[in-house]
Amino acid sequence: MGKPVTISIDAMGGDHAPDIVIDGVRLAHVRLPHVRYILFGDSARIEPLLTRHPELKGVCSVRHTTDMVTMDAKPGQVLRTGRNSSMWLAVDAVAKGDAAGVVSAGNTGALMAVSKFVLRTLPGIDRPAIAGMFPTERGETVMLDLGANVDCDSDNLVQFALMGEVFARAVLGLEKPSVGLLNIGSEDMKGNDAVRSAALVLRDGNLPIRFHGFVEGNDICAGTVDVVVTDGFTGNIALKTAEGTAKFFSSFMRQAFNNSVLAKIGFLFAKQALNKVRMRTDPRRYNGAMFLGLGGIAVKSHGGTDAFGFANAIGVAVDLVSHGYNERIRKELEHLQSFDQTQPRVAAGS
Amino acid sequence: MGKPVTISIDAMGGDHAPDIVIDGVRLAHVRLPHVRYILFGDSARIEPLLTRHPELKGVCSVRHTTDMVTMDAKPGQVLRTGRNSSMWLAVDAVAKGDAAGVVSAGNTGALMAVSKFVLRTLPGIDRPAIAGMFPTERGETVMLDLGANVDCDSDNLVQFALMGEVFARAVLGLEKPSVGLLNIGSEDMKGNDAVRSAALVLRDGNLPIRFHGFVEGNDICAGTVDVVVTDGFTGNIALKTAEGTAKFFSSFMRQAFNNSVLAKIGFLFAKQALNKVRMRTDPRRYNGAMFLGLGGIAVKSHGGTDAFGFANAIGVAVDLVSHGYNERIRKELEHLQSFDQTQPRVAAGS
Repeated sequence: MGKPVTISIDAMGGDHAPDIVIDGVRLAHVRLPHVRYILFGDSARIEPLLTRHPELKGVCSVRHTTDMVTMDAKPGQVLRTGRNSSMWLAVDAVAKGDAAGVVSAGNTGALMAVSKFVLRTLPGIDRPAIAGMFPTERGETVMLDLGANVDCDSDNLVQFALMGEVFARAVLGLEKPSVGLLNIGSEDMKGNDAVRSAALVLRDGNLPIRFHGFVEGNDICAGTVDVVVTDGFTGNIALKTAEGTAKFFSSFMRQAFNNSVLAKIGFLFAKQALNKVRMRTDPRRYNGAMFLGLGGIAVKSHGGTDAFGFANAIGVAVDLVSHGYNERIRKELEHLQSFDQTQPRVAAGS
Repeated sequence: MGKPVTISIDAMGGDHAPDIVIDGVRLAHVRLPHVRYILFGDSARIEPLLTRHPELKGVCSVRHTTDMVTMDAKPGQVLRTGRNSSMWLAVDAVAKGDAAGVVSAGNTGALMAVSKFVLRTLPGIDRPAIAGMFPTERGETVMLDLGANVDCDSDNLVQFALMGEVFARAVLGLEKPSVGLLNIGSEDMKGNDAVRSAALVLRDGNLPIRFHGFVEGNDICAGTVDVVVTDGFTGNIALKTAEGTAKFFSSFMRQAFNNSVLAKIGFLFAKQALNKVRMRTDPRRYNGAMFLGLGGIAVKSHGGTDAFGFANAIGVAVDLVSHGYNERIRKELEHLQSFDQTQPRVAAGS
């Protein structure tokens, strides 16, 4: 069952908070009975929900605050005035050592800003990145950055590659994960300056990484590599394009099966097999974007998810904690720095 | 049936040239009997293929050349040494007025370089863009740029918006098409400098465009707007991510239907309905990337397509010619220039 782990929860973040948050904790508790929770938010709204689930009594404690971050709040404004919000206090619990990781379904920009401010970035990392898991034809692939950094230089991309590679080893348990840089072609001359320079460092920089080279958009779902590295602008658009295409396909299939009596009969026969496809590609199963490169574990749940999705995001945070992701990445970065003193940090430019 | 149209064909371009090229012409001829073809390439290889299809005798003429552009040739090298290649001569036929448009399944970078050099860009357009059609939940959407320009400033994006909007009116017959800029969120502050400045011009620049604002990756397949505008790096990755996701889904469905006897029976019942989905999302139906912003019509077919796909690319070129796309875009650009003499070209910066 694993060692006890405490996760702090922003109980007021997300479109349907605190209801689905508490429901998510309840689902997570079934799968992960060794996890304890500190719930930050309005106790007048949280306590009645907890009362309905006596099994949560022993694993949840509530820290009351009425202040919360709205979904449209600007990150800068939250940094100035949000110190008593449920989000801030939940992140702060990780900084103070009360919790090993934090999960919030609130405003992404604000959560990233607060996490950076409170947890700081790891030494050797200029900017944290948002990473997520994708189902692929071969299994699962991790992709980063999914939107934290709009403009990335080659240093950032190289650091993302390291963070993703350690994740794939530490959390996914892959021995020698392959890393690809997202580009518009596989030839050396393709792409912008940032990806070309990053490729040079990843290929020839003596980094302990199995660098595959450039990959293209279709390689994400094909599972060509274990880790796909890109800037936050492209990564966010690729992620949402994939989600949109999946939704388009599902809705088309639904229409097709409703199209005729024959198709409806066919659906009944194939139902079990089709449900497997749906389960395997259910976006809720992949809910939980990881903020990598920070001094603590922070996971962002989709704001509109349900309890099943929120429970998955909790599972992602627990995975990162249980596999010691942050200790691993810290050690790797220290090792790299001692390994090459002429290159005091992982940098492409100098 | 329409007025006679002549299309020049790079008969040696693509993975399976000239066989699938000639086969594609044959398929296109069935649908478009009013179109004539000039086939550029090795007559020793083309003539035997034509002999098998006597119906093509009256609509095809062959211009012999043994020189051809390989799939891995560098664009600069082709510009220096490729003047007698089937690709160059096919493009040149448009510049000379022998053909109204050119179709090639050859090397994309080389085709763009040769087309720019031979056909020139239109006055008011700094860089041509590659545009393509997507099936969406609402119908069809055009997206550009799909990979011609890796780095785009706001001027380029505004020009792409104009080119796409005129395409949607002239070729798709939409009265007032909506235009969206691809970004990582819908709020004004989101994205990089280029998209933010371009949005300002499109929103307040008095351009005759129905500007929807920012759209996200999932809006492409949802069909939120008729025209999606983006830089060539992001556009290429979004296109290939969508293709990859569609492929992943199809292969998953195939596996599911082969999974059990029940599922196989279900497939037989639902076959007709499922075939409709497959037809509607068949990538060959969307084959034919348009090079917009040039002094002539040029269409790039996928290098690995079959005859059905190549015939579609021919159809795209004929559509652009028949609807007078280039005359329309020329007029719009002239109109914009006379409309505001203080802003002699469509520029976001000045």
